[in-house]
Amino acid sequence: MKTDIQIAQDAQMIHIKDIAQKLDIMEDELELYGKYKAKLSDDLWDRVKGNKDGKLVLVTAINPTPAGEGKTTTTVGLGQALGQLNKKAVIALREPSLGPCFGIKGGAAGGGYAQVVPMEDLNLHFTGDFHAITSANNLLAALLDNHIQQGNELNIDTRQIIWKRCVDMNDRVLRNVVVGLGDKMDGVVREDHFVITVASEIMAILCLAKNRKDLKKRLGSIIVAYNYNGEPVTANDLQATGAMAALLKDAMKPNLIQTLEHTPAIVHGGPFANIAHGCNSVIATKTALKLADIVVTEAGFGADLGAEKFFDIKCRKADLKPDAVVLVATVRALKYNGGVAKQDLAVENLEALKKGIVNLEKHIENLQKYQVPIIVTLNSFITDTQEEYKLIKDFCEHKGCEFALSKVWELGGVGGIDLANKVIETLENKKSNFSPLYEDDLSLKDKIYKVASEIYGASHVIYAPAAEKAIKRIEEMGFGQLPVCMAKNQYSLSDDATLLGRPTDFDINVRDIYVSAGAGFVVVLTGAIMTMPGLPKKPAANNIDVDDNGVITGLF
Amino acid sequence: MKTDIQIAQDAQMIHIKDIAQKLDIMEDELELYGKYKAKLSDDLWDRVKGNKDGKLVLVTAINPTPAGEGKTTTTVGLGQALGQLNKKAVIALREPSLGPCFGIKGGAAGGGYAQVVPMEDLNLHFTGDFHAITSANNLLAALLDNHIQQGNELNIDTRQIIWKRCVDMNDRVLRNVVVGLGDKMDGVVREDHFVITVASEIMAILCLAKNRKDLKKRLGSIIVAYNYNGEPVTANDLQATGAMAALLKDAMKPNLIQTLEHTPAIVHGGPFANIAHGCNSVIATKTALKLADIVVTEAGFGADLGAEKFFDIKCRKADLKPDAVVLVATVRALKYNGGVAKQDLAVENLEALKKGIVNLEKHIENLQKYQVPIIVTLNSFITDTQEEYKLIKDFCEHKGCEFALSKVWELGGVGGIDLANKVIETLENKKSNFSPLYEDDLSLKDKIYKVASEIYGASHVIYAPAAEKAIKRIEEMGFGQLPVCMAKNQYSLSDDATLLGRPTDFDINVRDIYVSAGAGFVVVLTGAIMTMPGLPKKPAANNIDVDDNGVITGLF
Repeated sequence: MKTDIQIAQDAQMIHIKDIAQKLDIMEDELELYGKYKAKLSDDLWDRVKGNKDGKLVLVTAINPTPAGEGKTTTTVGLGQALGQLNKKAVIALREPSLGPCFGIKGGAAGGGYAQVVPMEDLNLHFTGDFHAITSANNLLAALLDNHIQQGNELNIDTRQIIWKRCVDMNDRVLRNVVVGLGDKMDGVVREDHFVITVASEIMAILCLAKNRKDLKKRLGSIIVAYNYNGEPVTANDLQATGAMAALLKDAMKPNLIQTLEHTPAIVHGGPFANIAHGCNSVIATKTALKLADIVVTEAGFGADLGAEKFFDIKCRKADLKPDAVVLVATVRALKYNGGVAKQDLAVENLEALKKGIVNLEKHIENLQKYQVPIIVTLNSFITDTQEEYKLIKDFCEHKGCEFALSKVWELGGVGGIDLANKVIETLENKKSNFSPLYEDDLSLKDKIYKVASEIYGASHVIYAPAAEKAIKRIEEMGFGQLPVCMAKNQYSLSDDATLLGRPTDFDINVRDIYVSAGAGFVVVLTGAIMTMPGLPKKPAANNIDVDDNGVITGLF
Repeated sequence: MKTDIQIAQDAQMIHIKDIAQKLDIMEDELELYGKYKAKLSDDLWDRVKGNKDGKLVLVTAINPTPAGEGKTTTTVGLGQALGQLNKKAVIALREPSLGPCFGIKGGAAGGGYAQVVPMEDLNLHFTGDFHAITSANNLLAALLDNHIQQGNELNIDTRQIIWKRCVDMNDRVLRNVVVGLGDKMDGVVREDHFVITVASEIMAILCLAKNRKDLKKRLGSIIVAYNYNGEPVTANDLQATGAMAALLKDAMKPNLIQTLEHTPAIVHGGPFANIAHGCNSVIATKTALKLADIVVTEAGFGADLGAEKFFDIKCRKADLKPDAVVLVATVRALKYNGGVAKQDLAVENLEALKKGIVNLEKHIENLQKYQVPIIVTLNSFITDTQEEYKLIKDFCEHKGCEFALSKVWELGGVGGIDLANKVIETLENKKSNFSPLYEDDLSLKDKIYKVASEIYGASHVIYAPAAEKAIKRIEEMGFGQLPVCMAKNQYSLSDDATLLGRPTDFDINVRDIYVSAGAGFVVVLTGAIMTMPGLPKKPAANNIDVDDNGVITGLF
């Protein structure tokens, strides 16, 4: 059997200008990056911004398990299937992070016969967007420390510096560092921390900015530190905004690539789904809606984090109205939720499935609260049985959802025709009455409680003293009207990763809270969140190679 | 008067495929990065590698002064002038570093009416080559620390780690850091250092590699640390080579842009000129020679560092035979060398000029040792006088050199016609008998003495104990046959930056020596070399901005 990278490398890509033509994009509106990648120019947006919006379909999933769900694969495969049905469809995805490619996890371009290509480019430097974000992030850090070195006019308290440096690399020794050692000319000594680039607030900002002006407004609002009076010091105070925006000049433009079946895919931005909102950029989604009749997009992690933030942060801020949600599950993942060990997932087990299906049930009920029509899809696996399919299908239909089996991993677009037809029917016949979960003017605690109780199913929210103090400070600073961005483990609906299925009678424990003033949300930490991954004992990097002709192997 | 960026932004660029056509490059051999930048594909090299080489002209300069010499401006202007004379000429330049753009120094794209464009792109991310180098550098560092974290099978002595992390940013607090703080899972604590990306050995490797195979050989040979037995640990030992090469897949390909007058310019690589060799890539230079009749390239700093390394490292290793050298001086810089203060340089001063011209004299004599014909050019300035010009012209002709005045900053190619004609005459009529200064099989100390005595004019070379020990170790490891890469201040021929003109009766003090085994040279440190710049009190970043249409201002 071929690996993902082999399938990707065997693909006959067509020139990106021909992909663009499917969306009536003119060649002059493309900024080519080789033959198979292009950025969409500012001119394109100016021309199409008056167009009627297409329909917006979100792909989300049950809680992730080690068994794998295939959310991106389904997103890509659905796009391919819509293409097979001659629909003017476009996929709007996140860009993958470089660092994890060298660790355990491979690329994030879909899988099997449902992938976006060129896979190697996408997973390595792509069009340089993440490098631009890294540069902007680290310029701000350098300007901050230089300000302190040069006399510290702003009275920055070096014990209260919020801004962290970043690299797009899994590099655990950079989690906690001391900088500024050496002589007088080598800076002021202080503790510092690096995060991986996707965790930079600038990533979230790029993904939420409506245009260049809005980007600068958000960049300037970033709180980098507090001064000795406890007042926030911003990027604007450091006169860093213009230079950061200059570094992001091209990174602002969405990228166009293609699927294995030549469906257009707009791939842009990729913020973390815990300390940030986990969706591709607003600019990319809005552009896609102007260009296509159906836009298929996805959100990070399971629906409790990804879809909730897509609805309550991205759609709220960008005035987007999703028309349908595709909820991805697998038989294996549901059995895992029902208590089956990973090595036993290949065996039919209807009892475990019945037990584990409560995870799917909770996500269906959650999504129904947003009043958007739901299509549940099973990403099929060779060990699944017809009885298992039937059980899930009946369950979904009983819950008022459409259901479709998907075989896009194995068959590409052809394997997603049923799903695509269900999506098309839904878009034609069912009305979305989307509204977010909570209003802006609720207090931060009320917003948190609403998410914790209604989405996670928690009984209470318990605040650590630091969190209590932080909420008070954030509301005093005038950020109480912002939406909340919950940072929670992705494996459980609760804040305890081991509680699978549909946990009940649990509390959500809020450890700390901080404001991402530039991104425009308040981050609520429910446990330790890893913002700088490490490498495993046998890093994937050890097996990656490139031959004398420039062909890459070992990336997966 | 217009600023450089205004001139650059007013330029009417033509599509890069039309620039490529001037060199008979086919559109399919380009990998476009927008309309005005392209990478040259591997296929192009395969097609042209059998072509006859064009003529190779090196542009170098006297020792730099605060008055400015305009070496890149002259290089670009000479290329433009050759274009005006309908010669098939190409300029081969280094890529500028991103970090310094935000400090004091502006871009490195030439100046006035002799610039390469698009200037903002070139100075910011360009085609991502430096970001790729940063990634490869930091992947190696992450793999190194991860190896130690996971059990340290290779017995790496954490007190003898050579490999440093890098960022393309002027960030002084990263010069000396402690990494790995925190818990057990956060790595092993050790002292570490960041360098700016252009100081990474990977930059030098990329610039000296002949092809992908050679790149991997060099990457694998990088010494990252020593083990507890004092034996070198390499990138190959860490199984890092293939993944680093994969990250550099596209960075290996030379970049094509244009001058203000549409002369083709191949811009690729940019190693430091002190701890590395300071020249653009071998691949770019070799490709340029296959495409054009005349290739104009430059080397870093003054001729004592730049030209010496171009000849003794780059030409030696890549089998290049330079056909002529253009030596750039200015009236102002020569007067400065003659003891005139910076604020008095506008006043005619023939006495000071006679006194300072010894700096030019020494560089002429040095270059003559390589038996390559020399053309001295004065980069003219509005305050220069005819008497001053005459003095220098007579002096140069007396020394057996051609002489030409250059007004390319003010007039573009038209201002360089005299210079271009002198270069063409030289190429047609004078034979180059290029040979490097020393043979491979001299001992390291003999090589160092040869450069110090013959090029710098030193009496003796004094070795610190650490340097003595290092030489012994490096020769024992089998690296004695490598060329030496002198790291010396650029302002004086001596190792004392304050000794201007042509110092005599001085010694060169060698502080330490180390081998860059991947790059293939032995670095000789004659004083403290700054490999991570800082930002000034008023960073240039404070004035950089980008407007709502994506137009950048304040970059200079």
